[in-house]
Amino acid sequence: MQTRKLPATLRFMLAARRSELLGLEDLAQTCTLVTRISQLVHALQKERGYSNLFLSIDAPHQRQNLESLSQATALLELELRNELERIDQSGAGAADKTRLFTRIAQALHHLDELPSLRRRVREHRISAQDATAALVRLIGSLLAVVFEAADSAIDPAITHCLVALFNFMQGKELAGQERALGVTGFASGYFETELLERLEHLQECQERSFATFSRFASAAAQTLWQALGASESNRQACQLRGIARRTHAEAKVDCQLSELWFDLHTQRIDLMQGIETHLEQELLQCCQQSMQRIRSELHSHRRLLESLSDMQTTTEQARLFSVHSSELDSQPKDATSSHLARSTLELLQHQALRLQGMHDELREARQALEERKQVERAKQQLIRQLDCSESEAYAQLRQAAMNQGLRLEEVAQRLLSSSASPTHRPRQKH
Amino acid sequence: MQTRKLPATLRFMLAARRSELLGLEDLAQTCTLVTRISQLVHALQKERGYSNLFLSIDAPHQRQNLESLSQATALLELELRNELERIDQSGAGAADKTRLFTRIAQALHHLDELPSLRRRVREHRISAQDATAALVRLIGSLLAVVFEAADSAIDPAITHCLVALFNFMQGKELAGQERALGVTGFASGYFETELLERLEHLQECQERSFATFSRFASAAAQTLWQALGASESNRQACQLRGIARRTHAEAKVDCQLSELWFDLHTQRIDLMQGIETHLEQELLQCCQQSMQRIRSELHSHRRLLESLSDMQTTTEQARLFSVHSSELDSQPKDATSSHLARSTLELLQHQALRLQGMHDELREARQALEERKQVERAKQQLIRQLDCSESEAYAQLRQAAMNQGLRLEEVAQRLLSSSASPTHRPRQKH
Repeated sequence: MQTRKLPATLRFMLAARRSELLGLEDLAQTCTLVTRISQLVHALQKERGYSNLFLSIDAPHQRQNLESLSQATALLELELRNELERIDQSGAGAADKTRLFTRIAQALHHLDELPSLRRRVREHRISAQDATAALVRLIGSLLAVVFEAADSAIDPAITHCLVALFNFMQGKELAGQERALGVTGFASGYFETELLERLEHLQECQERSFATFSRFASAAAQTLWQALGASESNRQACQLRGIARRTHAEAKVDCQLSELWFDLHTQRIDLMQGIETHLEQELLQCCQQSMQRIRSELHSHRRLLESLSDMQTTTEQARLFSVHSSELDSQPKDATSSHLARSTLELLQHQALRLQGMHDELREARQALEERKQVERAKQQLIRQLDCSESEAYAQLRQAAMNQGLRLEEVAQRLLSSSASPTHRPRQKH
Repeated sequence: MQTRKLPATLRFMLAARRSELLGLEDLAQTCTLVTRISQLVHALQKERGYSNLFLSIDAPHQRQNLESLSQATALLELELRNELERIDQSGAGAADKTRLFTRIAQALHHLDELPSLRRRVREHRISAQDATAALVRLIGSLLAVVFEAADSAIDPAITHCLVALFNFMQGKELAGQERALGVTGFASGYFETELLERLEHLQECQERSFATFSRFASAAAQTLWQALGASESNRQACQLRGIARRTHAEAKVDCQLSELWFDLHTQRIDLMQGIETHLEQELLQCCQQSMQRIRSELHSHRRLLESLSDMQTTTEQARLFSVHSSELDSQPKDATSSHLARSTLELLQHQALRLQGMHDELREARQALEERKQVERAKQQLIRQLDCSESEAYAQLRQAAMNQGLRLEEVAQRLLSSSASPTHRPRQKH
């Protein structure tokens, strides 16, 4: 390596840049994985929707449809598994991947159970609700991989893309769950109070996810999202939400609405899929751009450092530079090194400032992820403590936020820290 | 590799554990580096003290002393540089080291200037103040490496050790600066108001550093720290602080107090060095323990996963286990996989919970580092905005905290975020 000849200071400056590139190349691979997951999740959502329909309204004509959907999903699963094989699981590059790998293992575990689930669906050996729940878990485990990828990304621009994509996927998944729930309700002709509460909970969480998506999305993605909001299928899907709200045991509606609800919400979700594809492309482009930038910076940085290094050894040049040096010093060697020192120092300060800026930007995006996780954990804690449903727990949190004039995230944070063991517990070591 | 034969799910579970070990081995190397830095910093502090004495009170009898101190420092510098050579700067393990490598380059840059500085000290071509300032910058850059190491550590127990050590080093460095400032004051017979303010600022910051150290220190380290507080040299050093405070232009004291001050504070700092050595040992022990634990867990984990994998392939065993299976299923294959699935799931859930706990503990320790950085940045911002000294900026922050009934860190945080550009600025992408 030519860089071996550089003095240690310059070598570490270069190593810092190279480290950034290595980290970015690694991140780019994770991003490719994320796009594969996004595609698989969409297929799974479709398969879940049709499985639910197949089991709920006993529609044998959907069986063929289901069959081809399963095949499409299996193909995307294979592609994801192939992508996973490409990940270096044991080399030095695998350091600090504990959380990501654990999430991947969890997702794979749920994928492993998919064939058995499909068999039971075909043979009507599982209820619509249980089949949906199993697929919700599977999709949740895949989303957790995307969450982890976003949380461990080291480039602010890419992290923004990942946070936007994750929140969009989450919103879309909730839209899928809403679709399934609506099918169940309309199939029985009306919505019980409890079902309606769950439906509203899913709608609210959807809105929250899409709001966070919007905060981190590019202008182009935001425009696409607004267009979806104004679309005819979205308008009609929302109308059906209103009808669902007005049903009750004495005011049943035609069970046929079940299929209409399904179709409209499917159209809405398919439109979302278009935006998701756009987000995937943005993500991959962003990776390419960041890598290109760092590669070219690394290149010019190396040349610059090599010329700095030459300066240090060439005495003639040293004398030349010492003329321009503002510091008076009797020994020319000091003058050269002081010029060299200033150039090096400037480069280093520039680099340190840039890293601090990146750190601040990362903090902001990660904060959004952390808050989502805390709301989720607070909800789980309430479910355990009050032995209530998820939508009830959520309603509790929301009410507390309104009463205390706080954001939902702040209430969640307080709830968790009040119930945690004392923060600064005495440590027993050695 | 035997693990190649495992199914993908189990392979990723194992990879997660291996990743943890790799990260830990890497962290252990950084910790060794940190102990070298700690030793070098102590030598530099000594050299700075004697350089200051040599330049301040024109004590030619200190020259020989200075010479041998410089040699001792140079030896420790060489050991640090050798340790740095051992770091893999270009391999895949170097990913995500951008900040650490940048800090190392900055420290090396300042170390490169040390020979020239020493020459100027010997030839009296630099003021005591400037020589001290140059060494303060050098030591600051070395402490920044320790900060970065603490901030990027991935193991909660090790992070606690590093946060304790960093804060202790920081407090000790401030004690060293206090020693230098006191020498200057007593050498001129009295302390001007401005000098006194700086002295008090250094004392306050010292206390804050040691308080944070105590929060994260082991019980053994805390006991050592309390013993230092009760020691005779600490008591006498504090007495001299009182005398310094009572001097003024019309109430001068004997210049000889300068050397007494220096000796007493040197004794105090040497006692600190004893504690620092203890902290270094704790750190290295902690690394060893964590690695040993992860290695043995990895070993048993591998065996467990291999046996799970065998279960999946051995049909006889499968039938055996299906008896215990609570889930009724007509196909034995489903029963085996459901037992296997439960075992796998339990392991995975255990791992995910453990990682979440580690994440929470890490957040707490990193918060302490982040807050320190923010106080520092808020101070720098005030210095620029008000064109004032560091101690004035600190006094401003402290006053604002008192007026608003907030912690110093909270005031700093508010100051920084109020002056930052709007947080959610529209993003211009694509």
